[in-house]
Amino acid sequence: MIYLDNAASTWPKPPAVKENMAEVIEHFAANPGRGGHALAMKASKAVFRTRVELSRLFGIQNPNDLFFYMNATQALNQAIKGLLKEGDHVVSSSIEHNSVRRPLEYMARTKKVEITFVEPREDQLYYTEDFERAMKPNTRLLAVSHASNLTGVILPIAELGELAKRHQALFLVDASQTAGVLPIHVGEMKIDMLAFPGHKGLYGPQGTGGLYVHPSVDLEPLIHGGTGSQSEAIDQPTTRPDRYESGTANTVGLAGLQAGVSFVLEKGVENIHAHEWKLTKQTIKGLRQIKGVEVYGPGEEVERVGVISFNIEGVDASEASFILDQQYGIATRAGYHCTPLGHRTAGTEQRGAVRASFGVFNTEQDVEALLNAVREIASAFQSS
Amino acid sequence: MIYLDNAASTWPKPPAVKENMAEVIEHFAANPGRGGHALAMKASKAVFRTRVELSRLFGIQNPNDLFFYMNATQALNQAIKGLLKEGDHVVSSSIEHNSVRRPLEYMARTKKVEITFVEPREDQLYYTEDFERAMKPNTRLLAVSHASNLTGVILPIAELGELAKRHQALFLVDASQTAGVLPIHVGEMKIDMLAFPGHKGLYGPQGTGGLYVHPSVDLEPLIHGGTGSQSEAIDQPTTRPDRYESGTANTVGLAGLQAGVSFVLEKGVENIHAHEWKLTKQTIKGLRQIKGVEVYGPGEEVERVGVISFNIEGVDASEASFILDQQYGIATRAGYHCTPLGHRTAGTEQRGAVRASFGVFNTEQDVEALLNAVREIASAFQSS
Repeated sequence: MIYLDNAASTWPKPPAVKENMAEVIEHFAANPGRGGHALAMKASKAVFRTRVELSRLFGIQNPNDLFFYMNATQALNQAIKGLLKEGDHVVSSSIEHNSVRRPLEYMARTKKVEITFVEPREDQLYYTEDFERAMKPNTRLLAVSHASNLTGVILPIAELGELAKRHQALFLVDASQTAGVLPIHVGEMKIDMLAFPGHKGLYGPQGTGGLYVHPSVDLEPLIHGGTGSQSEAIDQPTTRPDRYESGTANTVGLAGLQAGVSFVLEKGVENIHAHEWKLTKQTIKGLRQIKGVEVYGPGEEVERVGVISFNIEGVDASEASFILDQQYGIATRAGYHCTPLGHRTAGTEQRGAVRASFGVFNTEQDVEALLNAVREIASAFQSS
Repeated sequence: MIYLDNAASTWPKPPAVKENMAEVIEHFAANPGRGGHALAMKASKAVFRTRVELSRLFGIQNPNDLFFYMNATQALNQAIKGLLKEGDHVVSSSIEHNSVRRPLEYMARTKKVEITFVEPREDQLYYTEDFERAMKPNTRLLAVSHASNLTGVILPIAELGELAKRHQALFLVDASQTAGVLPIHVGEMKIDMLAFPGHKGLYGPQGTGGLYVHPSVDLEPLIHGGTGSQSEAIDQPTTRPDRYESGTANTVGLAGLQAGVSFVLEKGVENIHAHEWKLTKQTIKGLRQIKGVEVYGPGEEVERVGVISFNIEGVDASEASFILDQQYGIATRAGYHCTPLGHRTAGTEQRGAVRASFGVFNTEQDVEALLNAVREIASAFQSS
């Protein structure tokens, strides 16, 4: 099995992920922060270690400004719904996943929040000037994905951070495709809120994700409940992370995530990206040479993350993906990838696309296997 | 280590829980419902199996009416915030955990929802007639915990289900202390929404929980985002469970939960409860015979779930719990247990309490060890 669906969830995981999880479930799966006994303390420490490790990765000064959720989607909902009020304007991009778009549209529908989705230029790239033109006096939030989950195109995050500051707007970054793959430093990039999944580029298990929120930003909690602190208060406590982490944490998953993040720190984000970009460039180049194959997004000269979408002439995207899986043992993904805006941008809103996405464990041989398979499928369908 | 903190999180877990999780993370930790390839199909099946197993346990007709969340708290927030509108009245009880109380108070604060918390009578028990008296023409919801996480007192759920129906109100049950311990049948008990944690009486891992919602009840989703279906729509899809499950599922955790639920089904809920009640009765009886020990809640003749709160004269609750842990290797929990209302009811709002709670793996020897330890601590502090 050649796994090329890493943009949905990375696989395999480093062995330490499973080992950490097994240790927690066997030896100290008690409730963190909910009791002073030895097993609960061990659980609390495991969760805190994950917070510290992620803070190192993202340049977060205080680990308690980082809150854990079930996935990046929940983190994005907390950020967007916890911040925006009636009359606010939001600038976003046409690259967004439904995890950003749908919460924004919900706020538009129910709270009269106004949204501007910035489009790319003809070269399919996004320019800071275009975001600047979209800013208004009531722009409360600039909310963008760091990179597209359809074409891998990267947005100029550091410049956009400066832009947001100049306009007194807050800056929310969805790092679903970039956490663990591209360098992210919340201070240097002036990121006020950073949402990320644990199970993609951080190599943790599913069921984990998080949100960093700058200490100066107060959000209405999305979830109210028990926090193990200030139990007597009717409202959530003000202390972080408790205010934003009601209910029992996913201790086991977070212990696994810690191992994933350590693995990423050890490998080095730059090295991981260099590896994935090499494979990506090789794939785009190879696919473009196959007759009848259309690759979406800009040319191979534009550096991006390891996500490639394409179609084969005469073959439905889901059929192509099915054949790749069944005949060649290559796992890709077909469909709309939860990004209708992205598809409109790429011109694929009618048919979807096949997506291949790389992780740190993929090799040049994987790329060759994919190219050979696509070549065979393309020629079979064109001669028929 | 004698673990008596099962009301916070059960421990140990049946070995199959760890085995299921290890299998998923090693062999098919791909993204369920987000791709047609073999690994993603396996992940989807693992999640669906858990849905089916839980449906068997709770008498749910359609497994797709069951939605998965990170914990019971998130499930309760989805139920409460997704249902209530301005002008609605809610009847609840003074037994509630902050996971019910705080979302309700939030709705009171922001949406002018009105709440009545029904109190117990002098015998510390709750009576259906008292809930009936609290019902009003605008009562939209009756929301109660099945059992107290402080005293183990059980509420008359089946009667309350009838009551809600008679008054055209919806019935929400928080089964945090009862799922896997007391029989629950959503149809027979007329439960419209059932929230439960995966990591307590169901013996799954932390990071799992769920909400059953009767097919006739439409809630506003708490989380908006990608669902892998109807990607092109601006709003959430209407199909279940997708509408209420945005973002990637905790596949690994849910596979573990499946093993936990199977374990419970095999043991039999009645047998589990009988075992825990036997230990509980023995504990209450024993503690009441120790001079200087006060046990909260009704007498040992009243059947309840395996949760006992007590204090030792002259010893702070957290100190007592600390000594039990450090000197005797007995894990209990001290504090307010996220239930200020419950403490007011029990008369312990000033000092909190030590809580001991049982799981299926506890034995009569564990009870004897606890009683001996409390006896020694009580006599040490009384003679000093």
